[in-house]
Amino acid sequence: MSRKPKADLPEREFIRWIRRRLRVDSRTVPIGPGDDMAAVRMPSQQLLVAVDTVAEGVDFTLAGRARAAARLRRRRDATPREIGGKALAVNLSDVAAMGGVPQWCVASVNLREGLGAVFAKEVAGGLIAASRRYECPLVGGDITGWKDGVVVTVAIGATAAGKRAITRGGARPGDIVLVTGSLGGSILGKHLRFEPRLAEGAWLARHIPPTAMIDISDGLGVDAAHIAEESGAGITIREAKIPVSRAAYRLSDEDGRPPLRHAISDGEDFELLFTLPPPRAREVLGKWPFDTRISVIGEVRKGKGVTLVAAGGKKARIDSEGYQHL
Amino acid sequence: MSRKPKADLPEREFIRWIRRRLRVDSRTVPIGPGDDMAAVRMPSQQLLVAVDTVAEGVDFTLAGRARAAARLRRRRDATPREIGGKALAVNLSDVAAMGGVPQWCVASVNLREGLGAVFAKEVAGGLIAASRRYECPLVGGDITGWKDGVVVTVAIGATAAGKRAITRGGARPGDIVLVTGSLGGSILGKHLRFEPRLAEGAWLARHIPPTAMIDISDGLGVDAAHIAEESGAGITIREAKIPVSRAAYRLSDEDGRPPLRHAISDGEDFELLFTLPPPRAREVLGKWPFDTRISVIGEVRKGKGVTLVAAGGKKARIDSEGYQHL
Repeated sequence: MSRKPKADLPEREFIRWIRRRLRVDSRTVPIGPGDDMAAVRMPSQQLLVAVDTVAEGVDFTLAGRARAAARLRRRRDATPREIGGKALAVNLSDVAAMGGVPQWCVASVNLREGLGAVFAKEVAGGLIAASRRYECPLVGGDITGWKDGVVVTVAIGATAAGKRAITRGGARPGDIVLVTGSLGGSILGKHLRFEPRLAEGAWLARHIPPTAMIDISDGLGVDAAHIAEESGAGITIREAKIPVSRAAYRLSDEDGRPPLRHAISDGEDFELLFTLPPPRAREVLGKWPFDTRISVIGEVRKGKGVTLVAAGGKKARIDSEGYQHL
Repeated sequence: MSRKPKADLPEREFIRWIRRRLRVDSRTVPIGPGDDMAAVRMPSQQLLVAVDTVAEGVDFTLAGRARAAARLRRRRDATPREIGGKALAVNLSDVAAMGGVPQWCVASVNLREGLGAVFAKEVAGGLIAASRRYECPLVGGDITGWKDGVVVTVAIGATAAGKRAITRGGARPGDIVLVTGSLGGSILGKHLRFEPRLAEGAWLARHIPPTAMIDISDGLGVDAAHIAEESGAGITIREAKIPVSRAAYRLSDEDGRPPLRHAISDGEDFELLFTLPPPRAREVLGKWPFDTRISVIGEVRKGKGVTLVAAGGKKARIDSEGYQHL
């Protein structure tokens, strides 16, 4: 759907190359890539939709290019396949956070001129592989050659797995706060190859719908603050109960910050953070059918904001921009 | 839906600023911007979807930055409002080309750090103004601060205005080729403030559905070649019948290329190019209810590719990458 033929990768040829690899099902996707728009047959009239972007120097680095920000120094450079895969996976994580089932995606890629056709095909290959693996057909796209950094933007469509989508806004005082997986240090590699919690999110939405849910992209503290703000409530997190990842310990060895700080503040773990009344939370813990770890880390209270309670009882606040205050 | 708080524009504040301006209708958009995904109630289960990007140095230039390509030298710098407006309008033009009715859009914005909050709000303001004007609610978005150029990607959802969407692939030998508006020289200004032909595209789809339709973004010759390729047919265009714009004449005064060459080769006119059997084409010409100019410029034939026939009878071919051969 682009307007810009590229010297190093003529657009029509690239679209043909992609079409050959997509094997789109014409029953659900009557009009696939290559026309002005794709047509998708949705299982319901209620559509969930999101857009998210990964950009060079922000969400990944490339070999041979100066690393822009100090906080990126420890990151391993991404391969073009990983860039394509991550661009879709961050969107799939949004679907998981709504308790959704992915239905289709479209992608727009900006590539620095000179990276060449192999690089472009690898980015597309990463998108296509993720789209197959998570059964989320890539139905359209756009590629632009330009002078600046690599950007991949994906928009995704989904339907609710359960009766309704799970928002950030339904947490009530007394609810229990739970989280999947373990947290911190994702910059050491998980941020490029995490598993979107689609199965977990859909199972919850179908069987024991959370009162609120979000995926941890900004970091546990900040994402808890998003739930608190949208729900008009406060959240208390018990630091001793936070599942700290091995990567957080490894990163702590390097930078001297406590592993717990990494678990609270590092972004891009893409785990699910959700709330439920106590009996429903116990039901989740009892019936949880996944290998994925699940932890109770705190509770919803009246008031606002997020309070972190240390093992010794000392309290700190974290605001929605990520700053901690005693 | 972003993960990256920005120093010069904290994300939560920006989302609140946008929400105040959107006035989303909760009956059609039960979950608006600010959650992991938006929810939209669609009028049908058949969804049309597309994504398109505008990027600095490719689709617009900004004051104070070196202009990358020679072909951009004549372009007036874009205002941030125009960038936001164009990002949505190029997608609306895709909707027009399918004979669609826009239903929602989502936007992702990459901004160079240091451009500041006013710039970000102007880009968003341009998006929001276009979204209101064309009744295409902006339901979600993402903003990333980075070191490189400005990129705005919009994904758009639509439904078919008529019984079905109009693809590029249905032109048949004998069909007449028609085009709206006049062509060439859009670089002098139209490319930033064109009118997506939504009303015209929807009227055609409802009343006299074209056999094939496309919007002219790559240029008349190349876009005609897209219809030819997808339809498995050839197209003959009579140069004397091409509606040449005044901008094409102005540009010709500057660069010495004939106005007709600009009309054939310049991109970004965003007019509709479509095909119909002769009786249906006559019906369109007789019933056309718009002020927008409409012209018969050629016919579909057996074979492949696009043939340009000059007033004197001389023929040239144009291929799908835009190169002309005698």
